[in-house]
Amino acid sequence: MRLLNGQPQDVISMADRAFQFGDGVFRTMRCIGGSIEFWARHYARLQQDCAALGIMCPAEDLLLEDFRKLTPIDAVLKIIITRGETSRGYGSPPALVVNRIVQVAALPVYPDDFYQQGVKVRVCTTRASWQPALAGVKHLNRIENVLARREWSDPDIFEGLMLDRDDQIVEGVMSNVLVLSDSILSTPKLDQSGVNGVMREAVFDAAMQHGWTVEKRVWKLDEIKKAEAIWLTNSVMGLLPVSSLCEQHFAPHPAQVLLSAALKQLRQKEKFAIVNEPDMTKG
Amino acid sequence: MRLLNGQPQDVISMADRAFQFGDGVFRTMRCIGGSIEFWARHYARLQQDCAALGIMCPAEDLLLEDFRKLTPIDAVLKIIITRGETSRGYGSPPALVVNRIVQVAALPVYPDDFYQQGVKVRVCTTRASWQPALAGVKHLNRIENVLARREWSDPDIFEGLMLDRDDQIVEGVMSNVLVLSDSILSTPKLDQSGVNGVMREAVFDAAMQHGWTVEKRVWKLDEIKKAEAIWLTNSVMGLLPVSSLCEQHFAPHPAQVLLSAALKQLRQKEKFAIVNEPDMTKG
Repeated sequence: MRLLNGQPQDVISMADRAFQFGDGVFRTMRCIGGSIEFWARHYARLQQDCAALGIMCPAEDLLLEDFRKLTPIDAVLKIIITRGETSRGYGSPPALVVNRIVQVAALPVYPDDFYQQGVKVRVCTTRASWQPALAGVKHLNRIENVLARREWSDPDIFEGLMLDRDDQIVEGVMSNVLVLSDSILSTPKLDQSGVNGVMREAVFDAAMQHGWTVEKRVWKLDEIKKAEAIWLTNSVMGLLPVSSLCEQHFAPHPAQVLLSAALKQLRQKEKFAIVNEPDMTKG
Repeated sequence: MRLLNGQPQDVISMADRAFQFGDGVFRTMRCIGGSIEFWARHYARLQQDCAALGIMCPAEDLLLEDFRKLTPIDAVLKIIITRGETSRGYGSPPALVVNRIVQVAALPVYPDDFYQQGVKVRVCTTRASWQPALAGVKHLNRIENVLARREWSDPDIFEGLMLDRDDQIVEGVMSNVLVLSDSILSTPKLDQSGVNGVMREAVFDAAMQHGWTVEKRVWKLDEIKKAEAIWLTNSVMGLLPVSSLCEQHFAPHPAQVLLSAALKQLRQKEKFAIVNEPDMTKG
């Protein structure tokens, strides 16, 4: 189910710049029991990402009104904001009217085992591009993720890590990476490449609130293999431990239980009920 | 006027991966008097670009049949090939059916003065991304070109140069760059970034056929400012001399007449009449 600017619609003009140039941003969120997890964070990031591209971000109420029309319960929610429609050429008149797409899809269910034993991860040949103007932004130029995902078809492999030009770890194809090493929870810096996911920040905040030391730093592949534990995060699957990275195995780490519990608490605190009055649920 | 898979259509499914991820390639060509300039080169490049992304390239005859339906005379032609439609996620089943879009638009007319005196060029702050997997490919992930084009609104400035992470010149926002220096015609290497345009190659070939020495090399900004002449190329505007780059001025160079004449010859030789029988015009 999709809405285009508030109206049910499954097609878009081919003049839309997302179709022509990938000229827009998106958000993927989890809705549980009619509440969007980390909505305030998602909307703040949508605003930042729109600003990075010089796109006018739609008002929060408009987006929430869209979601109310779709009455999701347990679902994956997606927002796409495009710069608007032009006939041809990269130039974009300042007065362009954005297109706002809101979409509800079935929530994928991951086996419990994934959360307890972890998932298998490989390293991709396709590199993450260097582009500081877009680093961190969840934009619609995602061919490199598509190419990286095409590198494997083995269903036992859940995710692939992407490195940058300097052989530094950036992220997974569809996730961010968190690492526990020397009692510090860290994640690769994303100032040159990659997508700064809301779940990455939420887990970081949850960990900090429970007294963990956290940092953003550079990680090389040979270093990360020596870590105590690695996790993958995104807004749909949450926090998943890595059981193996290439030939390196990781046994379930005691920190997994603590971190999951901390995240669960924050999820509960930062959910936003779509159908209730905003002032009843926001605080 | 647009055709989607051979049928008149102005909208596309929002499940199309070009809309979701910019997951596709495109071509822009000039049609003069009902003939496509450099069609064989454009189709060869379309095949290469599709291969780089693992997309099945439509047969040449299908695309030509599309153009015959639209009967363009003097026009800009555009082809977009997308990987096809999927519901969600970067993963792409091998059996996806591509979407083929063919589009005809008015041909822009550039003042004669542009071709004789040249055009003003600036240098963009937005860098060209490093991404060897996509270098040279004319794909639909073009946010960086959009951002670079948004840096200026002065109508006297025709184009902006984009540098890479290493301060090397890659290309213009919508054009390739050719440089005359020490009697050698050169162009920046595009093995890490940029789009390898058909007109860039055509001018190179035209120059070689007339005995010029040509090379692909690295160009830094301070070096290129000392060049004898600089040109911009793309398939719509052809070959345009640069009259100024930042504060550096370039007087019309005698080579301009020679190079333009050589290109004109090759254009004449390599045009493809849309409405004639292919075997009458291909040779």
